[in-house]
Amino acid sequence: MTDRNIHVQPESGLAVEDQNVEIVERKGIGHPDSICDGVAESVSRALAQTYLDRVGKVLHYNTDETQLVAGTAAPAYDGGEVLEPIYLLIVGRATKEYEGQRIPAESIALKAAREYLDEQFPFLDVGGDIIVDVELGEGSGDLQSVFGEEGAVPMANDTSYGVGHAPLSETEQIVYNTEHRLTGEYAEENPVVGQDVKVMGKREGDHIDVTVAVAMVDEHVSDLYEYKDAVEGVREYVSDLATDYTDRDVTVHVNTADDYDEESIYLTTTGTSAEQGDDGSVGRGNRANGLITPNRPMSMEATSGKNPVNHIGKIYNILSTEIAQSVADEVDGIRQLQLRLLSQIGSPIDEPHVADAMLVTEDGVAVGDIEDEVHEAVDAELADVTGVTRKVIEGDVSTF
Amino acid sequence: MTDRNIHVQPESGLAVEDQNVEIVERKGIGHPDSICDGVAESVSRALAQTYLDRVGKVLHYNTDETQLVAGTAAPAYDGGEVLEPIYLLIVGRATKEYEGQRIPAESIALKAAREYLDEQFPFLDVGGDIIVDVELGEGSGDLQSVFGEEGAVPMANDTSYGVGHAPLSETEQIVYNTEHRLTGEYAEENPVVGQDVKVMGKREGDHIDVTVAVAMVDEHVSDLYEYKDAVEGVREYVSDLATDYTDRDVTVHVNTADDYDEESIYLTTTGTSAEQGDDGSVGRGNRANGLITPNRPMSMEATSGKNPVNHIGKIYNILSTEIAQSVADEVDGIRQLQLRLLSQIGSPIDEPHVADAMLVTEDGVAVGDIEDEVHEAVDAELADVTGVTRKVIEGDVSTF
Amino acid sequence: MTDRNIHVQPESGLAVEDQNVEIVERKGIGHPDSICDGVAESVSRALAQTYLDRVGKVLHYNTDETQLVAGTAAPAYDGGEVLEPIYLLIVGRATKEYEGQRIPAESIALKAAREYLDEQFPFLDVGGDIIVDVELGEGSGDLQSVFGEEGAVPMANDTSYGVGHAPLSETEQIVYNTEHRLTGEYAEENPVVGQDVKVMGKREGDHIDVTVAVAMVDEHVSDLYEYKDAVEGVREYVSDLATDYTDRDVTVHVNTADDYDEESIYLTTTGTSAEQGDDGSVGRGNRANGLITPNRPMSMEATSGKNPVNHIGKIYNILSTEIAQSVADEVDGIRQLQLRLLSQIGSPIDEPHVADAMLVTEDGVAVGDIEDEVHEAVDAELADVTGVTRKVIEGDVSTF
Amino acid sequence: MTDRNIHVQPESGLAVEDQNVEIVERKGIGHPDSICDGVAESVSRALAQTYLDRVGKVLHYNTDETQLVAGTAAPAYDGGEVLEPIYLLIVGRATKEYEGQRIPAESIALKAAREYLDEQFPFLDVGGDIIVDVELGEGSGDLQSVFGEEGAVPMANDTSYGVGHAPLSETEQIVYNTEHRLTGEYAEENPVVGQDVKVMGKREGDHIDVTVAVAMVDEHVSDLYEYKDAVEGVREYVSDLATDYTDRDVTVHVNTADDYDEESIYLTTTGTSAEQGDDGSVGRGNRANGLITPNRPMSMEATSGKNPVNHIGKIYNILSTEIAQSVADEVDGIRQLQLRLLSQIGSPIDEPHVADAMLVTEDGVAVGDIEDEVHEAVDAELADVTGVTRKVIEGDVSTF
Repeated sequence: MTDRNIHVQPESGLAVEDQNVEIVERKGIGHPDSICDGVAESVSRALAQTYLDRVGKVLHYNTDETQLVAGTAAPAYDGGEVLEPIYLLIVGRATKEYEGQRIPAESIALKAAREYLDEQFPFLDVGGDIIVDVELGEGSGDLQSVFGEEGAVPMANDTSYGVGHAPLSETEQIVYNTEHRLTGEYAEENPVVGQDVKVMGKREGDHIDVTVAVAMVDEHVSDLYEYKDAVEGVREYVSDLATDYTDRDVTVHVNTADDYDEESIYLTTTGTSAEQGDDGSVGRGNRANGLITPNRPMSMEATSGKNPVNHIGKIYNILSTEIAQSVADEVDGIRQLQLRLLSQIGSPIDEPHVADAMLVTEDGVAVGDIEDEVHEAVDAELADVTGVTRKVIEGDVSTF
Repeated sequence: MTDRNIHVQPESGLAVEDQNVEIVERKGIGHPDSICDGVAESVSRALAQTYLDRVGKVLHYNTDETQLVAGTAAPAYDGGEVLEPIYLLIVGRATKEYEGQRIPAESIALKAAREYLDEQFPFLDVGGDIIVDVELGEGSGDLQSVFGEEGAVPMANDTSYGVGHAPLSETEQIVYNTEHRLTGEYAEENPVVGQDVKVMGKREGDHIDVTVAVAMVDEHVSDLYEYKDAVEGVREYVSDLATDYTDRDVTVHVNTADDYDEESIYLTTTGTSAEQGDDGSVGRGNRANGLITPNRPMSMEATSGKNPVNHIGKIYNILSTEIAQSVADEVDGIRQLQLRLLSQIGSPIDEPHVADAMLVTEDGVAVGDIEDEVHEAVDAELADVTGVTRKVIEGDVSTF
Repeated sequence: MTDRNIHVQPESGLAVEDQNVEIVERKGIGHPDSICDGVAESVSRALAQTYLDRVGKVLHYNTDETQLVAGTAAPAYDGGEVLEPIYLLIVGRATKEYEGQRIPAESIALKAAREYLDEQFPFLDVGGDIIVDVELGEGSGDLQSVFGEEGAVPMANDTSYGVGHAPLSETEQIVYNTEHRLTGEYAEENPVVGQDVKVMGKREGDHIDVTVAVAMVDEHVSDLYEYKDAVEGVREYVSDLATDYTDRDVTVHVNTADDYDEESIYLTTTGTSAEQGDDGSVGRGNRANGLITPNRPMSMEATSGKNPVNHIGKIYNILSTEIAQSVADEVDGIRQLQLRLLSQIGSPIDEPHVADAMLVTEDGVAVGDIEDEVHEAVDAELADVTGVTRKVIEGDVSTF
Repeated sequence: MTDRNIHVQPESGLAVEDQNVEIVERKGIGHPDSICDGVAESVSRALAQTYLDRVGKVLHYNTDETQLVAGTAAPAYDGGEVLEPIYLLIVGRATKEYEGQRIPAESIALKAAREYLDEQFPFLDVGGDIIVDVELGEGSGDLQSVFGEEGAVPMANDTSYGVGHAPLSETEQIVYNTEHRLTGEYAEENPVVGQDVKVMGKREGDHIDVTVAVAMVDEHVSDLYEYKDAVEGVREYVSDLATDYTDRDVTVHVNTADDYDEESIYLTTTGTSAEQGDDGSVGRGNRANGLITPNRPMSMEATSGKNPVNHIGKIYNILSTEIAQSVADEVDGIRQLQLRLLSQIGSPIDEPHVADAMLVTEDGVAVGDIEDEVHEAVDAELADVTGVTRKVIEGDVSTF
């Protein structure tokens, strides 16, 4: 055991599963805020990789400020069209010159954004339905990071914190997986399901309401009957899916704002509401664990787009979640674990000012029984802090 | 007493003042994120007022997406200059036509932004140091709000929630007032203090560290000696100020990133770090109560720029804070009150799905002793929900 | 013969071929100004075709204002890269709604621009090396044109004029064909030749200097030797080519600004100087006949991007050139024909206020000998004025 | 006499005054194209002056690419408003760093544009009715000019030419002065006259039609009667004014597109058609002498915004006009003088490859009689080539 300042203590409040009301939200990858998160993080990864390839270390950058201005669209059965394109402005800082070598930061950003959008949004014509613009200025020259050199652990340059928890509550699991599986396996079979799927879970006692808003893709809908079928399909799929995660009573609501009499339905041409009236920006949606969880402490920090080498807020948000998950997996008897990491300016980031683990144990297990195990597990994970950076750059960690 | 669904219960965890570590942050009005918040809210107010003046009710709009792209500056003793202007893009939705009448939403936005910036930033030349651009699209036509007509209470159009607390902890009071008073009364006497003042408070047990980053204004600094004097002046002022709010031991740190040997100091031409490398956007900084408080539940919702008539997230965030404050003022024996409001889609916003008040009482007071009083006070405040809208439009409520 | 007001008269000055100094210039399709012309005209054609397809007539639009902001590039032997992308802003007016039908003018513009650029610029990565943005506002509502309906001839809505001539002088032919053939057949075999080929011809007496600036494509050049070979190849090809058009003495200069000692050469990554420092806009380069001919009267009117149904300046510039060419072909004895068309506001555009043909005849032919023939030929061509519109929309006429 | 290559010869064609049809146009300072010209030239002057002040010489820049995107307005009797602001993008190249000193080129550009617009457009709210944006990239590093150092004459870096003439024909004088005096002395007394005054003169034989389009300012018009009065006032003023320049028969037409029955009139809020649907850009309007003269040879070169030290096209266009004027003033017997200057790459710009003066003499004067005088006068003017640069920087020469 090192001398890392790790506290393990009982959670003073109720476990979230025991609270009377629980609210959980997830904005799907096609939500305008998530589009920005996704683009920002893709740009970040592409820049980091370029720096590694060209100069052997990650230089200073931050691309956590993408802004999306919604377009106007005229969706229609069997296929409508975008009338006024979406406008996406990638904003941030990047090192454009290093020891005489110039780095094409803006071109890299454009290409990374295009690749990401092309891959994730089959119904969005990049360059036709969406304009991608970029403004990457230069930051202060002395902010050059040093990742990749001899595995040194960077120093924290800010007082910041991260917070994560595990395991996910049932409602959280349902919300998270509803979006993932709908836009994943389900959309593959049912292309009518667009990428903009917003899920709200509300548990009151033992009843869970799951409200799903799915942007249906117009070219796969011929008329109102098909639309209703698509809605019903989603409802059934999600109802079924929910039983994988809970024995509680679940009610699923899909596209509740529809008005069939007025034929006012949630139809889109591109699979995202960004095509019509919904603006977006980075850091306004899901937290690093993919959820918005008002019942839990959350960090305000935008994770997507930040430099994964030295941005302590990003690293600690991802790390706290990862540590919580792996500790909850490894150590038996944990019902709920919340981990908070607070940085110490000027100290290596693997030595946080304090790492606070708050535990709710399972019946019959005392915090004291597993305290040491948790302490050790947290310690071991902290020791591998640069692993997080590597995983982020390689795209193995989602940030939203 | 109405049949509003108001719960009053004991807080299950520790009062924040009793927790071992407390972190509080405030980004001053000149922080790039706050500049965006401030502009977005000014634009919102101007639009709301224009709608009221012209059509007698507030029409649909949302202007919660301002993006700031940092400039480049060359600050210098006795006055430097901005090399590349800051770029500010106001983004959102607005109703531009109503019953045949056209509303100059974009021009209104530009003028409101300019007025706000001129008023708040004496060292920033609007149009010379900062470019203000605007893209206000139109949203869905059926989202027209009806404020001002017969005082009707709008229906909640979303499942959303707001959370507020009172009273502020000592650390919160110090952090909040440090920024307010530095950029207020102190800056009036000491124009060297710019508008970008970031305050971080960290309490560990009974020791509070207050870390202040002040953008000093170059035209009021002739050399390093004067700069050091300015820093020392701030340190003393804040140390002094802190004693108004606490008996705890307080250490104040000012501009800790300075390196006097390298003459690398926090000097700016415009009083904000937006002039050099710090981008910003709405909703990324302070919550509606002006603070970032990781020890408390917080809403992710961006409050600034949202429509105060029907945006339930905005209303409930402001309202929960206002209610918490007034209840904590009125009812004796409250040590900490946290109020959470959850909306009910389709119900009037003064009838939340649930209003949860979590209490920590003072020694010798039981929750049961004041439960009814709290219930009544919350009920009365909820009844005046439209008062919040009015106050927001009139600029009597700060949103960041 | 109709009563069109056609004047045929002798040219009062010298034929251009007889003037002592003649200057002719052509900016190739890859010149920044020409890129703008080409995009503007593509957008125009796409809009016109869309209007015809959807509402059966061409509605009001004008897209003659594309602005290109140059990028920054780092060309290198065997392939360099664009560092900061080119920015292209398509500006203009378009009808976006017609009898309840919405027209996606901006999306059409983006797609037309992309298609044009993809087709013409094999070394330019659209969306990666160049950002295409668009701002198409709406014009005055009463400017709706009516092309396609019963073949009516539109009325002139402005006092405007067009001017054309035929045949091309020898120098003009050389300049024109040098660019066309270099970027055409020659580039096909020699991809090292980029699209930005600027040709200046200067004839003094019987000596012609042809100065060619060719943007060489870096990925097809391995070193300075290959570059020199490429330059020499162009020189030989153009020298050879010139003999097809003249018996005069021709000297060809290629990339004269190169400095081999400094290895400062005209190498580009994308085949156009827009990648590095050369901005461009519509109407600043070639006239409608593809040339800049200071020895001839020229119209200031930007032809590219204008509405070909009712923009009298565009129509008359193209028409005067076409008429001059066909008359010079049909009627024997013409050494030089210059035709000027002046519109009459409120009259059908096939009835110009005046059509002035200025003739220089061949030796032994008097103007009087062919006056009637010319008059008739001009008259017949004018009768088919709407044919020009059709050809423009179908892309059979070049505008720059 | 030097050995400058100056040719003096008789004009081979007819003097413009003797041609049957003459067309002359002037776009007033408030025309969208002229707004761009004016801004571009202001920016150019401000940059040149800054370079002189800071480094003692004019560095490389070119700001000849301003693009204006029209707004939308709702003019109304007694004062309307701009609905969607005009967008003005200043584009060009500038040196931003020189020997370690940074030059705030973009901020200078913004401020110069604002100052120009504020000064010239009393009814346009800069920052409210018009957004001014800027993109000044850097050009090639080796293009640094050297003005101000020892009075050296720069070398021509391009084959370019300029063309000017004097004196102005009667129609030219009328057109030029109509705009100048209307927007000058007349507008001072009659603020109803906006800055966007477009004048077209058409002379056929001895009849001159002057067609004036005046953007009337709505806040100075209460109803249709006042509007008609304003129109009639302009008509009378111009009719009167014309007699200062000609004895020919003149008919003046004002705002001919008005339709009083429909109350469709030329009313603006800002005094320029840029507020509603008319885009603009640099170099698309008046030539360097302030006129568009299809009866004369014209240069395609955009003059406004170009670097006056080394941009040979700009210098020669201004210089040829200035020389023509001063020679026509000094030398008796000149009825029409056209001067063309052609540069010689690599030679000092005061030694053009050729200076061609084409003369039409007054009755009784032979070209031979004044040939030497003209030669000498041209020679003397050329010797003072750098004087043009100075005058341009000081704003003593208009470029559009």
